[in-house]
Amino acid sequence: MRIDELPTPALVVDLDLLDANIARMAAAWPGTRLRPHVKAFKSTALAQRLAAAGHTAFCAATRREIAGLAAAGLGHDLLLANEVVDGDRLAALISGAPDARITVAVDSPETIEVAARAGVAEVLIDVNVGMPRCGCAPEDAGRLAELARSRGLGVRGVMGYEGHLMAEPVDRAAKVEAAMALLLAAHELVGGDIVSGGGTGTWDSNQWVTELQAGSFTLMDTHYDAAGVGFAKALSLHTTVLSVNAIGGWSTCDGGLKALGMDHGDPAIDGASVWYCADEHTVFSMADGAPLPGIGDRVRIWPAHVDPTVAYHERLWVTQGDQVLDEWPVDLRGW
Amino acid sequence: MRIDELPTPALVVDLDLLDANIARMAAAWPGTRLRPHVKAFKSTALAQRLAAAGHTAFCAATRREIAGLAAAGLGHDLLLANEVVDGDRLAALISGAPDARITVAVDSPETIEVAARAGVAEVLIDVNVGMPRCGCAPEDAGRLAELARSRGLGVRGVMGYEGHLMAEPVDRAAKVEAAMALLLAAHELVGGDIVSGGGTGTWDSNQWVTELQAGSFTLMDTHYDAAGVGFAKALSLHTTVLSVNAIGGWSTCDGGLKALGMDHGDPAIDGASVWYCADEHTVFSMADGAPLPGIGDRVRIWPAHVDPTVAYHERLWVTQGDQVLDEWPVDLRGW
Repeated sequence: MRIDELPTPALVVDLDLLDANIARMAAAWPGTRLRPHVKAFKSTALAQRLAAAGHTAFCAATRREIAGLAAAGLGHDLLLANEVVDGDRLAALISGAPDARITVAVDSPETIEVAARAGVAEVLIDVNVGMPRCGCAPEDAGRLAELARSRGLGVRGVMGYEGHLMAEPVDRAAKVEAAMALLLAAHELVGGDIVSGGGTGTWDSNQWVTELQAGSFTLMDTHYDAAGVGFAKALSLHTTVLSVNAIGGWSTCDGGLKALGMDHGDPAIDGASVWYCADEHTVFSMADGAPLPGIGDRVRIWPAHVDPTVAYHERLWVTQGDQVLDEWPVDLRGW
Repeated sequence: MRIDELPTPALVVDLDLLDANIARMAAAWPGTRLRPHVKAFKSTALAQRLAAAGHTAFCAATRREIAGLAAAGLGHDLLLANEVVDGDRLAALISGAPDARITVAVDSPETIEVAARAGVAEVLIDVNVGMPRCGCAPEDAGRLAELARSRGLGVRGVMGYEGHLMAEPVDRAAKVEAAMALLLAAHELVGGDIVSGGGTGTWDSNQWVTELQAGSFTLMDTHYDAAGVGFAKALSLHTTVLSVNAIGGWSTCDGGLKALGMDHGDPAIDGASVWYCADEHTVFSMADGAPLPGIGDRVRIWPAHVDPTVAYHERLWVTQGDQVLDEWPVDLRGW
């Protein structure tokens, strides 16, 4: 099948660009120095491609992601980089994947207690390094590690996500260094082999973590592209023009709010100005007086934020040139 | 099961409020005067409840929605209120639902040709009434109706969606009247029994359509609530607090960008200030010095936009008081 025969809206991965992104990242963060974050792409097929490139340890944000990775034979070393307070579901996850190595983030006595009762074997102490979200104060990390060990949990080290710096335009490297100083101070108190953190936005500035939690670099989006992180946009939404208003100067294509994560604003179309997205439409005009695409023409939309875009779709269409090679289920959706 | 035993994040429908919304709308738009738009809720179970209240004609935005309604025995009178240029998939839809009455919107010679070749029996002429999207110019509607009839299509009338006025704060009624004057002028040229349009935002100001295409009124969101449309917020995202930062004054709960449509901005939490949403988290502080919810506490989030919120979820949990009564699959997702 050719790309232009795909039923639209279709979320499309350019395999050559994906592979180039993986190779570029692997050159800097080889093997398990990279712990790919599957939340960006939610596909075990894409995770398999990363594993084949040597990245056999994964990071995830939900139980469903961890369970799916384990079921797909990717349970060598899984990190649930998120707090869990639902003990029953955590216990079901652990007992349902007896062959997987599952490490869970904890940041409080409560989450340590939940992990211990659920049969979790190993944890990381999640440290707040400046972004208001989860994570303990750096100075509390040692106390929590001690508590975790007293409850029988293995403590592998620390994690801390400098998410507030991923697209930081001013002095990113210096700010990352300051954030990581907090994480390293916590690591001194905690011990263990792992200092986990970072992401696509700090892959070339974070020299302090032992493993990088990046995922968006695989597929990319306009937000990370504008931040200049150096990877190629391998993901696009292919749509078809349904209606043209020649007098008004706009066209309407068939992908919208239910196919695109919108928290980073409107998506982009090459050579065009996007007016807005509706539930099932994107309305746009052409820049510089270029002719409007006609009814039935294909239009490629660049998502502004990869993670919540992929989460809307059942599948990724894998393409090379103008050919469709494969279909990867987005099999890690939901919770 | 009680609500507070639901695995979170959980999208929850308050059945009493839903039923009150349906009753309120039915009093103004009884029976097939209302053509509920299923794009807002994407659930045949919820559609069945509307059908039981007398609303047996439905409106949809995608082929998948139409096919699902037909398969659920709700094919009495279905309107695909959207343009289609993929003839193969349209033909499959029509041939796959031989017992359903399916009417399709057309706004161009191209979409008329696709409909005729796909075996569509009936169409509505889609008219632009002021919002830049699909729809022909009002003065072209008669010519298109003639073309459609010449191709063997039954023309049931016109549709025109005044979507740009749904939350219009100034002179909404007068602006709706002006938009509908365009639609009525087109109807004069087209003929047929149907003048279809309107939505939740104009349910009490649009006196000109023969049937109202409203769907959001069933579940509502903070955007329509702020517009003062008069229905109750029956939909909320139930979450659990995962982490509390007492010094910083924020809590983090377990529902975020992959559980909430974000194009209308951040969601709301009663008595709280939402700081931001991340992929799997919402971070907030309390207003007026109220105590922060603790780890494990439940937090109810009000979505800002119902349609793209529901589209992220596999199911709606149906509740009454603090009890969970049922689980409705969101079975009309995708395309």
